[in-house]
Amino acid sequence: MLAETLAAIRPADPGAIAAARAYQDRLTKPRGSLGALEELAVRLAGAAGTSPPPMPEPAALAIFAGDHGVHTRGVTPWPQEVTVQMVANFLAGGAVANAFAAQAGVPVTVVDVGVAADLPDAPGLVKQKIAYGTDDLSKGPAMSVDQAVRALEAGITVARDLVASGARCLITGDMGIANTTASAALIAVFAGRDPAEVTGRGTGIDDATYQLKVDVVRDALRTNGLSGAMTAPSEALRALAAVGGFEHAALAGFILGGAAARVPVILDGVIAGAAALVAAALDPAATDHCVAGHRSAEPGHTVALDHLGLHPLVDLELRLGEGSGGLLAHPILCAAVRVMHDVATFDSAGVTEKPV
Amino acid sequence: MLAETLAAIRPADPGAIAAARAYQDRLTKPRGSLGALEELAVRLAGAAGTSPPPMPEPAALAIFAGDHGVHTRGVTPWPQEVTVQMVANFLAGGAVANAFAAQAGVPVTVVDVGVAADLPDAPGLVKQKIAYGTDDLSKGPAMSVDQAVRALEAGITVARDLVASGARCLITGDMGIANTTASAALIAVFAGRDPAEVTGRGTGIDDATYQLKVDVVRDALRTNGLSGAMTAPSEALRALAAVGGFEHAALAGFILGGAAARVPVILDGVIAGAAALVAAALDPAATDHCVAGHRSAEPGHTVALDHLGLHPLVDLELRLGEGSGGLLAHPILCAAVRVMHDVATFDSAGVTEKPV
Repeated sequence: MLAETLAAIRPADPGAIAAARAYQDRLTKPRGSLGALEELAVRLAGAAGTSPPPMPEPAALAIFAGDHGVHTRGVTPWPQEVTVQMVANFLAGGAVANAFAAQAGVPVTVVDVGVAADLPDAPGLVKQKIAYGTDDLSKGPAMSVDQAVRALEAGITVARDLVASGARCLITGDMGIANTTASAALIAVFAGRDPAEVTGRGTGIDDATYQLKVDVVRDALRTNGLSGAMTAPSEALRALAAVGGFEHAALAGFILGGAAARVPVILDGVIAGAAALVAAALDPAATDHCVAGHRSAEPGHTVALDHLGLHPLVDLELRLGEGSGGLLAHPILCAAVRVMHDVATFDSAGVTEKPV
Repeated sequence: MLAETLAAIRPADPGAIAAARAYQDRLTKPRGSLGALEELAVRLAGAAGTSPPPMPEPAALAIFAGDHGVHTRGVTPWPQEVTVQMVANFLAGGAVANAFAAQAGVPVTVVDVGVAADLPDAPGLVKQKIAYGTDDLSKGPAMSVDQAVRALEAGITVARDLVASGARCLITGDMGIANTTASAALIAVFAGRDPAEVTGRGTGIDDATYQLKVDVVRDALRTNGLSGAMTAPSEALRALAAVGGFEHAALAGFILGGAAARVPVILDGVIAGAAALVAAALDPAATDHCVAGHRSAEPGHTVALDHLGLHPLVDLELRLGEGSGGLLAHPILCAAVRVMHDVATFDSAGVTEKPV
């Protein structure tokens, strides 16, 4: 399924990009006056292979949840059971992601890819558990390559199912206590940066815990023999398995699944950014189908976005995850595309153009 | 009506602010993890005088349109008739503001406060014309103080009517060829800056036109004897009349009207920023009820926001006006407030808190 998905991904279509850019200049607004939104609509036309691009509605949010063996190293003050508690909170509709999703009219799917507990069946919960959490990435590989592939394929399956049920935009979400540690390790490897440059304070840690977290990321890279020079997809899979989380692997698959279906994928924060680096290492064309929803407060996120060449739509110092930043970006994405569907041209509206 | 409105404006309520801040810390999210959105919800609680603040829905956009005598100085390559043509485009639903408003589910009202042409009656058009455009601000006052007061009151009336028909959030919009020139002059006066610091390229002008525009703003301040040291409301009215546009005056009234009704006002770009400086000069408490929708590409806008102490929600290099940036911010505002209504507390959701 992974190979089939990778084979289906097409890069942006230059013809659709050129057509969209030319059309933007015919609309009743000063040229370029919509700034980054014009470029966004043009990118989406390229990704869809048609101008104007289809409206990215309805959207669907998938929150991938997993636990992390590295939690035992004390990289976060939050107890591990908060992962399963927050999964229950998502399913009960009580989390921030639910509030933002309700505001945007976006349904929420929660996917258990590696929570360290058995979850009761519930509406909105998809069970794709690979294991009860990863192993400690600072002591050896977090998961096997086979597990990584299964988690990737779980993400692809979720993307396919959501698109099959009508979604025309996918939004990434995540939950997993300690997952910013795995994110930092992935970003260090895939963007070739020192752990100190890409490790942040996650949901809020003190100086001593922060220093420990940097050391743990450094341990993870050394123990797993990772140098930061990924070249072949097989190396990318090994690196993902070595220092990723199940939710990172599944999110990478979710991105690839959306890209294969030519449906735009709005990336949330640093966890999604790390997963997008993995997806891009497996197929660089996947990035053409990604939109950076927001810039989180995590330093690794900015590194990941720069490496991917993506510009975030929202920059409000969020550091929550869950898909919160991606959900805020969705109405902006829709507005940018709607301009290309609804706005009159100078000719059709009888508006005089600025003399050149 | 102006005096009555000013008397009704209350500053932010410190009790509601404190209650909102304390409640934010009980919600199932790491403290501070919603960044600027937590501060936004807290500010709105203060403005409303109650925590949680009421949902800022439904919203209403009012686009105030006017023409400018300074157009004859050649400060823009766009012909003056584009103002009336774009008013027709708004009323026909073909402009960017209409597309963004449709996306956000916000009705659009167009208010003629000074278009240099007679407009046929149309659904959605409110006629409050003060004159057929202002006089040339670089040769003398753009309007009389009496006209400025009438334009302010037109804006107050529109705000009152929209709130009476159910609006719980007001969004500012504007249309007027050459109105960035008047905005630059207002910002120079009310923020006490040199014209070169606050004059921008509007919808796109060449270097020679830009230099002319700065000189025109400088002429306007000198001719009208304005030094940039506004202290009393009566001086503010004189300065507004001297270098403002009818849409600036009406927008200042619209802001005051929203503030008096304790309904949040989302400011669009540089024209609204200039108008908000006028409103703040008439009553500093008006700013407590304003939200900066976005940061436009105009340098004067950043100066105005800094002077008002407001932080924009969207920063996408828009330079269109019409209310476009304000409309993009509205879903973000709703999301921030919805968190305070919908999200579970640690206690209610049974989620373990981070040990302090």
